[in-house]
Amino acid sequence: MGDVIKSVEDVLNNRLEGNELSEVKRILYGKDLEKLDLPTEARAEAEKGSFELAGYRFTALTESTRPPRVVRAAVIQNQIVLPTTAPVADQRQAIWNRVAEMIATAARCRVNVICLQEAWTMPFAFCTREKQPWCEFAESAEDGPTTHFLQDLASKHNMVIISPILERDEAHGDVLWNTAVIISNHGHVIGKSRKNHIPRVGDFNESTYYMESNLGHPVFQTEFGKIGVNICYGRHMPQNWMAYGLNGAELVFNPSATVGTLSEPMWGIEARNAAIANSYFTFAINRVGTETFPNEFTSADGRPAHRDFGHFYGSSYVAAPDASRTPGLSRLSDGLLVAELDLNLCRQVRDRWGLRMNQRLELYADTLARAANPDFQPQVVYDYSG
Amino acid sequence: MGDVIKSVEDVLNNRLEGNELSEVKRILYGKDLEKLDLPTEARAEAEKGSFELAGYRFTALTESTRPPRVVRAAVIQNQIVLPTTAPVADQRQAIWNRVAEMIATAARCRVNVICLQEAWTMPFAFCTREKQPWCEFAESAEDGPTTHFLQDLASKHNMVIISPILERDEAHGDVLWNTAVIISNHGHVIGKSRKNHIPRVGDFNESTYYMESNLGHPVFQTEFGKIGVNICYGRHMPQNWMAYGLNGAELVFNPSATVGTLSEPMWGIEARNAAIANSYFTFAINRVGTETFPNEFTSADGRPAHRDFGHFYGSSYVAAPDASRTPGLSRLSDGLLVAELDLNLCRQVRDRWGLRMNQRLELYADTLARAANPDFQPQVVYDYSG
Repeated sequence: MGDVIKSVEDVLNNRLEGNELSEVKRILYGKDLEKLDLPTEARAEAEKGSFELAGYRFTALTESTRPPRVVRAAVIQNQIVLPTTAPVADQRQAIWNRVAEMIATAARCRVNVICLQEAWTMPFAFCTREKQPWCEFAESAEDGPTTHFLQDLASKHNMVIISPILERDEAHGDVLWNTAVIISNHGHVIGKSRKNHIPRVGDFNESTYYMESNLGHPVFQTEFGKIGVNICYGRHMPQNWMAYGLNGAELVFNPSATVGTLSEPMWGIEARNAAIANSYFTFAINRVGTETFPNEFTSADGRPAHRDFGHFYGSSYVAAPDASRTPGLSRLSDGLLVAELDLNLCRQVRDRWGLRMNQRLELYADTLARAANPDFQPQVVYDYSG
Repeated sequence: MGDVIKSVEDVLNNRLEGNELSEVKRILYGKDLEKLDLPTEARAEAEKGSFELAGYRFTALTESTRPPRVVRAAVIQNQIVLPTTAPVADQRQAIWNRVAEMIATAARCRVNVICLQEAWTMPFAFCTREKQPWCEFAESAEDGPTTHFLQDLASKHNMVIISPILERDEAHGDVLWNTAVIISNHGHVIGKSRKNHIPRVGDFNESTYYMESNLGHPVFQTEFGKIGVNICYGRHMPQNWMAYGLNGAELVFNPSATVGTLSEPMWGIEARNAAIANSYFTFAINRVGTETFPNEFTSADGRPAHRDFGHFYGSSYVAAPDASRTPGLSRLSDGLLVAELDLNLCRQVRDRWGLRMNQRLELYADTLARAANPDFQPQVVYDYSG
């Protein structure tokens, strides 16, 4: 890999020591999390499958009126498997196989809830602005082949699976959406959530393919906690994160696809800020690798036409309401990140910090209503002294 | 200082090198900022006065229809000077003298706008829950001695000064507020802004002393840009930052007072997230040092009574809309941080990222209005498959 670093955390662990290392980690990552003791078989599978496996524990205080609510929640980041020129069905099948293997390892690690990356069954082809063959990856959320595939795995492993796909809503005019399907640990589709904010930036030509969600900010009450899904670009919108919190989410997943030159310095900030501001756990998931397309395209930045999007930098991580976070997965390879967490921490942090109590919702409902009016006059005080 | 680190950036610069250092800095801090070439006299004053002096340049693209709008904005972090047992007037006078010295150095560095720390004329005595003598530090925003003192400095140095004080509103029942006074570079009071969210956490017993602002989110149009002030605990509230953005702010100052055990892992996250989400510059300012009080108090955390609040960790920094930020000032000593910036960057980032265009204000105005209703039913989808 020459001079490419695997992760910031890897560099810090290699180059710092003693008090300097622990102070830098405390300030940058909050308290030092205990590593999970994952099964030897799982470690062996990860090694054989050439993917990273990491696990951390977030603890909470013991309460006398509520039992702990400990769950294991995980995320997967992965490269595409076949070239983007292979038949669509083959590309999808190859990714299915790869991810099924990683889900099996998650099951071995006693994972209860897992979330895959954005549009996980396909290359992130929206940079091309071509509709064919990429629209062929779109499928029904409730009744498509990917959902069927995962329903079997979900019930087999007793695991809630969140599956972000390109959705085709055939019953409503063949409209496409960027959608996450929530499959229960019994294999039923609980519901779906759609991407609320659609980027129009650089290679992210997604507004060409689908529109903003019409489903609001649903939260799914599962056996393992209340789940919200904030897809990709929605992580730049604090009000989007906030709405999932208002609906009671305890775990908010952010399946994403983003590249280094555009967003890497923001990556460690946004999902973590959301965890703090809303007193819930967040899961930032990014795909990994470089995807090359058959036809050249431009990136609206003056560069000559080219065939790849740049490097998806992985770095998936989990952030807690108390401002601690896990290290990121590798910037370079597939990975499975397991977090054991006690959901009771959400309320404990809320009681301590009072951030929800102090939100002043009436004030901001009024502010936003006024600001949404096309005739809105901003509250500006002028300096007449000049 | 034994094993206390000066700052994370200091450790990274000392222990990493070459590509590892530059990659870690790129990922954690965005692009590497050019250091400002500050005058030798200013450096000498800082050395003589035992305060840190640092300066960085944020650049923007050249536009053909707008000239650059380059300003120098600065922040000061400082310890109190006299013991908290000295007469109130003496304590205040000693802090005035110290800060006037640092403002003079800022003027030498051609600073146009400066912001002081929260309740800068006093120790952060709210941990004591005592009203006397601390309420004596409260004074009129428009006509108090501190405002008069700074008006002279503002016109002398042609500098906008933002002065966060404990305000006494004598005309309206002697009510106290946590207020920032905005003084123009011509020495006039342009207006004031009050703290919108009041903490009730640990030693931050501030709800005992003053209430939530009744002034909304005013933005002050000065000769050097449009300024908002988000005081302290308001930094945990993304909706608060957002409202200053809706009113057109380009520079939002966050004068704060916060201690390490409570908030240090959040410090680098929140003001920076706000700069990204709202496409404006943010200035995170924290006082520094340990303040000891004459009478013991408790911290609502089971610890025995004691006389100090813990260490205020400084670490003031500036964050830009493009996700870059300056290193922080020291965790241990007084400091003056100067940022040269081109305000045109705000619009350039807005055009590129489209975050403001994609805010969906109508949706969230509706969501917040519903959520503010005591009978609000969260949007929850239940799993009936179990």
